[in-house]
Amino acid sequence: MSTPLNPHIRNTFAPPVMEAYRWLEGVTFPSDRPLINVSQAAPALPPPKNMLKAIADIVLNDPAAHLYGADLGLAELRAEVATQTSALYAGTITADQVAITSGCNQAFTSVITTLAAQGDEVILPTPWYFNHKMHLTMQGVEAVPLPTGEDLLPDPAVAEALITPRTRAIVLVTPNNPGGVEYPADLVRAFYELAQRENIALVVDETYRDFDSREGAPQDLFTDPHWAETLIQLYSFSKAYRLTGHRVGTLTASASRLAEVEKYIDTVTICPNQIGQRAALWGMRNMAGWLAGERAEILDRRAAMSEGFHRLEGWKLRGIGGFFAYVEHPFDIGSDDLARRLVAEAGVLLLPATFFTPPEDPRGQRELRIAYANIDRAGVGTLFDRLENLAL
Amino acid sequence: MSTPLNPHIRNTFAPPVMEAYRWLEGVTFPSDRPLINVSQAAPALPPPKNMLKAIADIVLNDPAAHLYGADLGLAELRAEVATQTSALYAGTITADQVAITSGCNQAFTSVITTLAAQGDEVILPTPWYFNHKMHLTMQGVEAVPLPTGEDLLPDPAVAEALITPRTRAIVLVTPNNPGGVEYPADLVRAFYELAQRENIALVVDETYRDFDSREGAPQDLFTDPHWAETLIQLYSFSKAYRLTGHRVGTLTASASRLAEVEKYIDTVTICPNQIGQRAALWGMRNMAGWLAGERAEILDRRAAMSEGFHRLEGWKLRGIGGFFAYVEHPFDIGSDDLARRLVAEAGVLLLPATFFTPPEDPRGQRELRIAYANIDRAGVGTLFDRLENLAL
Repeated sequence: MSTPLNPHIRNTFAPPVMEAYRWLEGVTFPSDRPLINVSQAAPALPPPKNMLKAIADIVLNDPAAHLYGADLGLAELRAEVATQTSALYAGTITADQVAITSGCNQAFTSVITTLAAQGDEVILPTPWYFNHKMHLTMQGVEAVPLPTGEDLLPDPAVAEALITPRTRAIVLVTPNNPGGVEYPADLVRAFYELAQRENIALVVDETYRDFDSREGAPQDLFTDPHWAETLIQLYSFSKAYRLTGHRVGTLTASASRLAEVEKYIDTVTICPNQIGQRAALWGMRNMAGWLAGERAEILDRRAAMSEGFHRLEGWKLRGIGGFFAYVEHPFDIGSDDLARRLVAEAGVLLLPATFFTPPEDPRGQRELRIAYANIDRAGVGTLFDRLENLAL
Repeated sequence: MSTPLNPHIRNTFAPPVMEAYRWLEGVTFPSDRPLINVSQAAPALPPPKNMLKAIADIVLNDPAAHLYGADLGLAELRAEVATQTSALYAGTITADQVAITSGCNQAFTSVITTLAAQGDEVILPTPWYFNHKMHLTMQGVEAVPLPTGEDLLPDPAVAEALITPRTRAIVLVTPNNPGGVEYPADLVRAFYELAQRENIALVVDETYRDFDSREGAPQDLFTDPHWAETLIQLYSFSKAYRLTGHRVGTLTASASRLAEVEKYIDTVTICPNQIGQRAALWGMRNMAGWLAGERAEILDRRAAMSEGFHRLEGWKLRGIGGFFAYVEHPFDIGSDDLARRLVAEAGVLLLPATFFTPPEDPRGQRELRIAYANIDRAGVGTLFDRLENLAL
């Protein structure tokens, strides 16, 4: 390009999922061995029929579903999220503390824009969610890696030692992406108390909350009447109601921070799309039973994954939960080479941990992420068959 | 807030349209004098019935419309935009030079992120489109004002004198927002040649192109086989097909720049929403005749606005076109006070030029933007009645 290029975007790596999809180009998958795609956390099916009918009805009969709406989202949806979140977490969340965003990634980018400028620092446990790292890099914000051990749990004392005058936030993803692990409530609270002491924000991304194996609230931070001074919570409707293509997420934070988020959303997308918001609202009001069934199904897939894992000699299951299993492979090649070879040699698309780790982190070459929730119990069995019989 | 606040977002002003809507709170509008809302460029009606049926059909029968898609947009839509843009502008634009974004604002923010970092400069003719200014401010990029005269046309020689080693782009909006004026093709070309000489980008935002009063292509830059080295064009489906609530726009640039844009979109929204993209595609394939009728209607509203303007004693019509008239008022009060008073005293909501000008620019207090395209010929007459009878 002869025209200018922002050095921060040049330094940002290319979207991993798009890159992985390019590995499929030119590879054919025989009908008796179709591709097993466990790369992206993405339901393979559209929403159930009754929801499709409800969305079609909105399209035909609700004129406002085609027009601009409020920057921070549909008032009824904000109120519904506030009510249901208050109930689940036994806390007090008001509608003006909830914003609707164009997917959960935008919840992250909007809130980070309110927190950090070029030269500031944000602490991310590693392996990290690549889109979080990418956003920070393209903004010139330093993503400070907080290495986790074999159990994939971050240590608040290690985090504390990383805090500098430029630190603006710590970001936790639980259930974790890519690690799968569900962070214990007392661990999340320890990070909250650290953030409180340091006057920094604690961002908790709960995209995969609906598939947490624990009953009830996964953390107790909203029970603190002062939660909004420290906590920022992110959530997505994409997985719960199979609305990935609709781009609807939420952001829960203080009303004063949402006034800053409003500037960002006004500028980037004006408002979240109206059909997706109404679909999410319909889902919240009508699909609790269906979602419970989805959760049971995904927990069954998880059980299949855990129970059968011993079949893979030399492999180690480091974490499992939400949508993901995070595993260590036994081969003498790097995970990025392995992942590419698995496409042709096993008909499996998954992501290497190099996508989730700083380049200098040796675990990147040893580990892989498997989005097991994309495949059913039988599919998990087939996946094991193929990995068991690898001849590398 | 006890947690950190990015000084750049603190320095960003609040969304003007949201602020203007707050002026309506507590004001009642009698049924014989309903509110005339000429604040935001927003169709008041949803798409026509046949398009609604087509969207509902997509919802019910196209499973992919609910799932993740490619970051840079639906392949068929990118190809259709490339084909139709090539034909309209008599140039060569390929599908890999087109990206679909979550509205035209995101087309702007994504491309600016590829161009400029904190401390860099981007030249905007003033009055400017407030969301462009807001984005630059929140990124720590300096929006360098390029003042225009009474005709609202920017001067390339004045722009040239503003270029520094930190300048990354010049942004033109034509038909202009807020000024309405259609930039002559040779003026746009003069800016293009300036950008070429200086190795900076020329961003041309053609959101309101479909309502340009001129026949054919509004500029000839795509006829240059090397256009992609300098030109970045933005466009929106929101106004053409009344899809404001769907959030779909486009960005046309070099494939290498779109590889950088892909990083941004992946991180901020993952992909544009799938329903809106399919609606836009259906519109491009089926609504050319309907759109011609919409254009004729808006040109008639424009004619009504121009023809009747003499009724407003002391007012001056500075610019008209696209969706907007940009006017100078004759009162001894500032435009921001005037705009607020018009809500209660005339039942009119419009935006003061203070929303579109740097604080030090005196024209901000003298001028107003009227989104005349929101109201029909009769509505324009009623608007004149109310403004003519103002007793301030």
